[in-house]
Amino acid sequence: MYNSANVAERQSQAPSLAISTVIFALRTDPSSGASEIWLPLVRRIRQPHLGKWALPGGPLGARESLQDAAARNLRETTALDPTYLEQLYAFGGLDRSATQRLVSIVYWALVRPDQADLARDSENVRWFRASEAVGLAFDHDEIVAYALERLRGKVTYGSVAYHFLGDRFTLAQLRGVYEAVLGKHLDPANFRRQLRSAQDIAATDEVLQGGRNRPPRLYRYTGP
Amino acid sequence: MYNSANVAERQSQAPSLAISTVIFALRTDPSSGASEIWLPLVRRIRQPHLGKWALPGGPLGARESLQDAAARNLRETTALDPTYLEQLYAFGGLDRSATQRLVSIVYWALVRPDQADLARDSENVRWFRASEAVGLAFDHDEIVAYALERLRGKVTYGSVAYHFLGDRFTLAQLRGVYEAVLGKHLDPANFRRQLRSAQDIAATDEVLQGGRNRPPRLYRYTGP
Repeated sequence: MYNSANVAERQSQAPSLAISTVIFALRTDPSSGASEIWLPLVRRIRQPHLGKWALPGGPLGARESLQDAAARNLRETTALDPTYLEQLYAFGGLDRSATQRLVSIVYWALVRPDQADLARDSENVRWFRASEAVGLAFDHDEIVAYALERLRGKVTYGSVAYHFLGDRFTLAQLRGVYEAVLGKHLDPANFRRQLRSAQDIAATDEVLQGGRNRPPRLYRYTGP
Repeated sequence: MYNSANVAERQSQAPSLAISTVIFALRTDPSSGASEIWLPLVRRIRQPHLGKWALPGGPLGARESLQDAAARNLRETTALDPTYLEQLYAFGGLDRSATQRLVSIVYWALVRPDQADLARDSENVRWFRASEAVGLAFDHDEIVAYALERLRGKVTYGSVAYHFLGDRFTLAQLRGVYEAVLGKHLDPANFRRQLRSAQDIAATDEVLQGGRNRPPRLYRYTGP
């Protein structure tokens, strides 16, 4: 796969450093009402992997912190400012790139549906269902899988679900987040019971605006 | 603090990449019987921060994965092979080093007391109580504090405590790990009750060897 000249060249170079960002949003299918995880990808406009889709990212600027570089990735790809942006993992395997030794520090961001709807596709940026984001450039398939795994772990005990939603949400919307992340149907009555005993969610006096006879109550997140 | 020539120089350089490793071990005070968290530090033998104590680490080798470099840090500092070695966080603030822009990917290792006893101090390596590891080179105070914080978080729900112990341990030894990590006394009876209802610990048929009338039973970890 690599000739010996390439290997020798790789050995002599200091590792290069890049920052990449996995940006997850929840989108609800208007017909089925089911929620799914989506992410934006950027089309490679140079070699290697010309034409393939890749996570947004690039070299770390000399005057940027890691977090600032990740926020820049987010802004350049989606025109959004981060509400949830966290370091995910540093990937530094020897053969991630055929042309250089590359270490990528990967961040992940969660954006809300109302934000994600604002982010339109452009020629070189397109939103994909996470389940369909395969055949990406470099080892980005693996990075997306790792991010989804972390997301599943976080959502089962943490506050991460709330970052997908707005300030106010119904229990059905919150269940939609859990179902999308965990990839399975949850019994509404059981879900409701478990959530009510959780400490970091509180009912408000407000209800969801709409034309229904019994509009559902809105909740808010009260945790850290 | 920095003159403008230094700042200009820093701006023009590509960021350098280093791997550092926080190595935690538990040591039990023979007189009080209390357990404490210790870590080995390396004395700086060149500028900057000449003579200060620092986390073991250095540049990433061209033919090393991140994990291999961290394992090498561990081996060079303690002559130990890792049993628990995990990526902690990448630190990349702008002013971590006055002489260059430096990004450090930090790993953490847990070693068992029987291993840590084998690791003797040498001229440039010394073990410190975590509570007394302050005034370190660069931002290593902050990194140690971050690692301790992560350790506390992990020990309250995860299997991390078991990595401090051998294959077999008494409930009192396990309580010692929790007490050392959380920094507080735990009621033995309550601890015992809670642990017995945990799913990932099982009693063995063995007891602790020693001269006592009622030698305590040995347990083993059965989780992932």
